[in-house]
Amino acid sequence: MTPFVRIQNIGEFIEQEVTIKGWLYNKRSSGKLRFLLVRDGSATIQCIVSKNDIPAEVFENCDLLTQESSIEVTGRVSRDERSPLGYEIQVSNLSIVQIAEEYPISKKEHGVDFLMDNRHLWLRSSQQHAILRIRHEVIRAAREFFDQRDFILVDSPIFTPNAAEGTSTLFETDYFDGKAYLTQSGQLYGEAAAMAFGRIYCFGPTFRAEKSKTRRHLTEFWMIEPEVAYFNLQDDMQLAEEFVAHLVQSVLKNRLPELKVLERDISKLENIKAPFPKIHYREAVAMIKKENPAFIDGDDFGAPDETIISEKFDRPVIVHHYPAAVKAFYMKRDPQEPEYALAMDMLAPEGYGEIIGGSQREDDYELLIGRIRDHGLPVENFQWYLDLRRYGSVPHAGFGLGIERTVTWICGIKHLREAIPFPRLMQRIYP
Amino acid sequence: MTPFVRIQNIGEFIEQEVTIKGWLYNKRSSGKLRFLLVRDGSATIQCIVSKNDIPAEVFENCDLLTQESSIEVTGRVSRDERSPLGYEIQVSNLSIVQIAEEYPISKKEHGVDFLMDNRHLWLRSSQQHAILRIRHEVIRAAREFFDQRDFILVDSPIFTPNAAEGTSTLFETDYFDGKAYLTQSGQLYGEAAAMAFGRIYCFGPTFRAEKSKTRRHLTEFWMIEPEVAYFNLQDDMQLAEEFVAHLVQSVLKNRLPELKVLERDISKLENIKAPFPKIHYREAVAMIKKENPAFIDGDDFGAPDETIISEKFDRPVIVHHYPAAVKAFYMKRDPQEPEYALAMDMLAPEGYGEIIGGSQREDDYELLIGRIRDHGLPVENFQWYLDLRRYGSVPHAGFGLGIERTVTWICGIKHLREAIPFPRLMQRIYP
Repeated sequence: MTPFVRIQNIGEFIEQEVTIKGWLYNKRSSGKLRFLLVRDGSATIQCIVSKNDIPAEVFENCDLLTQESSIEVTGRVSRDERSPLGYEIQVSNLSIVQIAEEYPISKKEHGVDFLMDNRHLWLRSSQQHAILRIRHEVIRAAREFFDQRDFILVDSPIFTPNAAEGTSTLFETDYFDGKAYLTQSGQLYGEAAAMAFGRIYCFGPTFRAEKSKTRRHLTEFWMIEPEVAYFNLQDDMQLAEEFVAHLVQSVLKNRLPELKVLERDISKLENIKAPFPKIHYREAVAMIKKENPAFIDGDDFGAPDETIISEKFDRPVIVHHYPAAVKAFYMKRDPQEPEYALAMDMLAPEGYGEIIGGSQREDDYELLIGRIRDHGLPVENFQWYLDLRRYGSVPHAGFGLGIERTVTWICGIKHLREAIPFPRLMQRIYP
Repeated sequence: MTPFVRIQNIGEFIEQEVTIKGWLYNKRSSGKLRFLLVRDGSATIQCIVSKNDIPAEVFENCDLLTQESSIEVTGRVSRDERSPLGYEIQVSNLSIVQIAEEYPISKKEHGVDFLMDNRHLWLRSSQQHAILRIRHEVIRAAREFFDQRDFILVDSPIFTPNAAEGTSTLFETDYFDGKAYLTQSGQLYGEAAAMAFGRIYCFGPTFRAEKSKTRRHLTEFWMIEPEVAYFNLQDDMQLAEEFVAHLVQSVLKNRLPELKVLERDISKLENIKAPFPKIHYREAVAMIKKENPAFIDGDDFGAPDETIISEKFDRPVIVHHYPAAVKAFYMKRDPQEPEYALAMDMLAPEGYGEIIGGSQREDDYELLIGRIRDHGLPVENFQWYLDLRRYGSVPHAGFGLGIERTVTWICGIKHLREAIPFPRLMQRIYP
């Protein structure tokens, strides 16, 4: 029996007979030859069927094959410098697993809704392959970064009794005789874990019921959130820039062919090395006002404002010291200028917007309970969180990085929905 | 300034002055000496404060320290063969960050409900540390296993429009103007992704609204689910046994001190190497009936039945060919004996029960749509899933491994709820 080989490893079998198992991606005919482009999920290879070399029945079978038909192909591997893979197969046998019905996704342009309705099939395209392989690499590199620095993975719960940042955008679910909310962030739990392990990260799906249809919103997205005891805002910004540089450099190192499929301008990614520029909110406002005079000092930035800032730099920029009034209750204020929070956001270049939000956390019990009350949140739900300020409170900080926004930027694609396998939007939970 | 060092790395600083930042775990006095046991999340070290060596004020401060008070300690590192860590610190300075209020968790025995109410603090204990570090290693090793075998991570969605295995144990949530259900398994989406990438895995939280209060149930638990195109039941069982052996051997290699903290019988884990015993459902029934004559042939196994089987073996055992009638609609039946499904479960040793469930999937369109109807499921919700049998259907198989059950078994602990940082049970979503 010939060895079964994944196409990506076929270079190890030159001049040998192998079997591949996959699907027909494309085909063309030329007299007594058939050229089958076969994909198996790892790569795509051209298989050449020559009428004179194989039984008549097998050759006739080639003409039955439709796009995405499943087939097993046996043949001899040879070099082919003209093909992207560098190899081709001279077919000696071919068996049909299934003749596919007429495949709905053709080479022509399709509307976005049509492609989203067929997301389960659209995943088979080379563009979507490239994006999701880069997503895999971003997630792998993210875990690697924290694992190598002795952070402990502490998964935060999905079901929560309360909200970190208000209740208006929460998904609610019946929970036996009560109610639960789906997490918007693992941060509060991460803080408890940081007091136990010193440095931790959590990594899972988070949920926002935002009534927004923009390119920048998903109702379900993945976030990785480190939290570190005895850490201040400066430490936090440095960790964030080293982290993001590691993600980008890992994709450049391990997924360059995929970036090329996406026609990504690699030079823009090669720049992404720490340190990143860091500017005070005040400086950011001065930049924005030159181009958007209507901007009101003290407001949070809108997407166009973020673009104004990020366009000034060739790498991500960190804006720190946002006005405390527009930030979450748990952020510590700067003792030197208490109207500002020890908060920071990282904005990706090329107008891709915020990919990281973080802060030093309020570690004083009295100040924290006052903020919870000021924000109208139910103190009884936060007793456990307040405990962290009763039993050995320490300065601590952390941040959250949104995976899909990061993947969208690194891939250089337009829409967040292609950066996750099965996107969930306000008007879409199918397939 | 003296270097800031994590305690686990302190062996690199022998006879040097360092600063550690952490919390007081325990202390004792002996005349002019104070012995402070300090933890920083990475490890615990004994710090010796000698009245003659330091300012009087610093020495007096030692007597103010309560359990879990946060402190920064500076001193000289020396070897101490008697301590578990192998090092101690001769203190030259100590500063108090916060004196903790009276810590609710003492050395005495506490009830489970009390500890669960204080889960955010309980995480600081050495036992819980050990369990969660082993959890981290299981997850790291799980991803490593599939990454090294060229599986692509394809996260399945949490919000789903339909259920894989019936609706009775689903959590439902309002989704804008409609309803959504929280995923019980990523498998159906994994099948779509396997047709795109050949071999994939998904890894995320899954949800079951089971009204069960047993030690074996959580409402929220993490599952890793590989799915492979051109895979049959035999391939699937082999992948599963190699995978579980890799998890156990990785924990033995990288988390041996933690297993010792848990007083785990290591010899029972050293056995866990592939291949594992594999028995047909019929053989399993014969074993069960000897000890439980009331068992009815054709039924699924209860927990005591699983224990009867698993006690016969020194490593996990795979039971295959369950009756199709007790298994899910998507499982393929064995053409040789169609009353049995090409299904398999892996039972952990020592009575820890099922850790893996898997199967070869039905790949025939007509049979599958018939099963969906037979199970009373809404066909319109499964159109996308049926598409996978229209456009290049292939034999394929996969399985799901429950992380918490696996961690519970490897740690040798009694209750699933300690194998996840913030457990969610029927009657608990706090903290």
